[in-house]
Amino acid sequence: MIRFFNGPVLEPAGVTENEVWVDGTAIAYVGPAQENMPAFDRQIDLNGDLLMPGFKNAHTHSGMTFLRSAADDLPLHKWLEKQVFPAEARLTPESTAAFVKVAFLEYIANGITACFDMYYHTDEIARISRDWGFRTVLCGSFTAGNDWSELYDFYDHYNHDFGPLVSARLGFHAEYTTNREKLEYLSKVCHELKAPVWCHNSETASEVADCIARHGMTPTGLFDTLGLYDYGGGGYHCIYMTDEDLDIFARRGLTAVLNACSNGKLASGFFHLKEAVAKGVHLAVGTDGPASNNALDMFREMYLINIMAKLREENAAAGDPALILDAAVSGGARAMGLTDCDAIAAGKQADMIRIDMGRANMRPVNNVVKNLVYSGNPANVRMTMVAGKVLYENGEFFVGEDPAAVYAEAEKYTRAILG
Amino acid sequence: MIRFFNGPVLEPAGVTENEVWVDGTAIAYVGPAQENMPAFDRQIDLNGDLLMPGFKNAHTHSGMTFLRSAADDLPLHKWLEKQVFPAEARLTPESTAAFVKVAFLEYIANGITACFDMYYHTDEIARISRDWGFRTVLCGSFTAGNDWSELYDFYDHYNHDFGPLVSARLGFHAEYTTNREKLEYLSKVCHELKAPVWCHNSETASEVADCIARHGMTPTGLFDTLGLYDYGGGGYHCIYMTDEDLDIFARRGLTAVLNACSNGKLASGFFHLKEAVAKGVHLAVGTDGPASNNALDMFREMYLINIMAKLREENAAAGDPALILDAAVSGGARAMGLTDCDAIAAGKQADMIRIDMGRANMRPVNNVVKNLVYSGNPANVRMTMVAGKVLYENGEFFVGEDPAAVYAEAEKYTRAILG
Repeated sequence: MIRFFNGPVLEPAGVTENEVWVDGTAIAYVGPAQENMPAFDRQIDLNGDLLMPGFKNAHTHSGMTFLRSAADDLPLHKWLEKQVFPAEARLTPESTAAFVKVAFLEYIANGITACFDMYYHTDEIARISRDWGFRTVLCGSFTAGNDWSELYDFYDHYNHDFGPLVSARLGFHAEYTTNREKLEYLSKVCHELKAPVWCHNSETASEVADCIARHGMTPTGLFDTLGLYDYGGGGYHCIYMTDEDLDIFARRGLTAVLNACSNGKLASGFFHLKEAVAKGVHLAVGTDGPASNNALDMFREMYLINIMAKLREENAAAGDPALILDAAVSGGARAMGLTDCDAIAAGKQADMIRIDMGRANMRPVNNVVKNLVYSGNPANVRMTMVAGKVLYENGEFFVGEDPAAVYAEAEKYTRAILG
Repeated sequence: MIRFFNGPVLEPAGVTENEVWVDGTAIAYVGPAQENMPAFDRQIDLNGDLLMPGFKNAHTHSGMTFLRSAADDLPLHKWLEKQVFPAEARLTPESTAAFVKVAFLEYIANGITACFDMYYHTDEIARISRDWGFRTVLCGSFTAGNDWSELYDFYDHYNHDFGPLVSARLGFHAEYTTNREKLEYLSKVCHELKAPVWCHNSETASEVADCIARHGMTPTGLFDTLGLYDYGGGGYHCIYMTDEDLDIFARRGLTAVLNACSNGKLASGFFHLKEAVAKGVHLAVGTDGPASNNALDMFREMYLINIMAKLREENAAAGDPALILDAAVSGGARAMGLTDCDAIAAGKQADMIRIDMGRANMRPVNNVVKNLVYSGNPANVRMTMVAGKVLYENGEFFVGEDPAAVYAEAEKYTRAILG
């Protein structure tokens, strides 16, 4: 059993001074010190540092690290057509595995304990996730070119064959890369499996306009009409959503996954935070892939969501740091089906991080939550634990591989693909 | 003498593989390894890490750390009137010193080697700067309530009495906190001293509108007409500048100091980057104070300047990472009169930082500059050297004070002021 003590703890009801004990993969106890303590295998003196649930990266393409800083500052379509797609066509399982490992090192060092990944060569990411001890939820990236009957196998395979750290959700790439026939088939699949459905949704204005031209409905309206949301789910980006789209999300309990850094870098635009919050839409936070971000940093996402809300509304009072922090932690867990990993509470999985309060950017401590959102950064992450196992502590990784070897392999494959 | 070797070096002409030798406060040699090496006091194997000039924080209010996360998410005027001004009225030299130290720890850990500070109790910051070995340029924050004849003493005192690390520039708070008589007096002062002049300029739309109502001119037009720019200088923020204002800046060689994070958090608006660059306006980068930002992080500033340009122009190709990195380093040095600290070159002051390339966010290395701007963060700073002295290395400070004691003192004074 591992004991955390002597520091603030971010619990669902607020910041406490409780102890947290971890037994195996789960949190065994959260409360005051007791007279008769059990025998601990390790006692971690937080020394004033904050213990909080790990960030849930609710939308990413981990394997895209090879494109980091390789294709920036281009308009979206040129970026996709000229840079991303030709490079991705050259990916192999081996190279994808190398690139995924770089992303995982970044997640872990940045306090992310789970990712909701949509990319290719999914067996590789599932295997690395299992072997390293990192939590991954895989989302299908099916397009019109795929045989969608494989969705059954995808769902079954990743929900069962890689152990408790790997799971799967039904998903497809986006409306504009599929067709009505495929979506009708998916409706049959999701009803049989009683499963939520995920995809990129309303990331650009043209995507929505084209969908209306094709189907007479927005992407959200189309998916809802086809019954794809009968078991929940949600969308990534969700920028160009109408009030009616947000109403559907609210009514169905769907989650809008915000990707502010990607939306900023690709100049896609501003999420309608104020309207979504007023309607009670569930929110989560994701980094999107490293090609369009380029960091995998939930601090920066939380920060930029609030900043973009203020700029969009031309109101310094816009945004809501506490709500966005909650979205980045428990909102993501809810979206990903990880409700057993969403909080520090007895019985929950021990997916937790230690935030260094001994860095000047967290001082003085007028408000811990605002410090995290407005001045926190990856340097504040001192420890990352997933399912009770410390994967990172004080700059060192415990994932069974040497970071330098991971970087060297990723560099080799990157040069082979990009030159 | 200190030797840096075995890593890329960001020189004015680009990234090289040169060695860098430091002798006393200055860079003695930049070039390939030599057959007969001098005797080094210390040899630092960069092991692939990047050596680059330190960031110059070209606009800040260091003493405001006590307001970090204490007064967020409020409209600008309410924020100033209800939160900032009443709290600042309670500042003493002792409490200001404690708060400045927190900012300095943050600067140093974040790779900032000099700050252009405008705040109260300036003797405190000058003294700490001298004692710690950090470089500070003080800018007067004079308002209508001050006796402006003290500008002579201010300029003389801080340019001479605290040694080579402390200097001063003529400055006043802003047009809206002074009057024409004071500005005419300042014109006399700056002509006598042949000194550049600095102030907040065009941060909000109302500031510009009010100035036009009062003087029939924009702030920039007014200052130019009064001769305040006859010896150079520039402005902080510079958001609501007209084309004519930017022309004045370009013609006079003035510097616009960008403060994107503050402008975002206070919903002030977007700098006209495209127009300023087209006109050849000199640029620098500053964090503004920790009350309105809340971090003192030049990575985030560089990032957000580019992101805000993309969002403003609705064009993913907008922004210019290389230009903004240059602004954050040599542009700031130029603005602050620190042209002997602006680059890694023989004869320049050794104000340099070591960037950890062994963190996943910098991998793979497709483009070092874009990595710095789009995915870099304070966790990448492994070492900060000012005037040849290592102030920070691998998480440890060498400033003669214990960070924990600094934080405790700042916490004590913060509670005394804010409750």
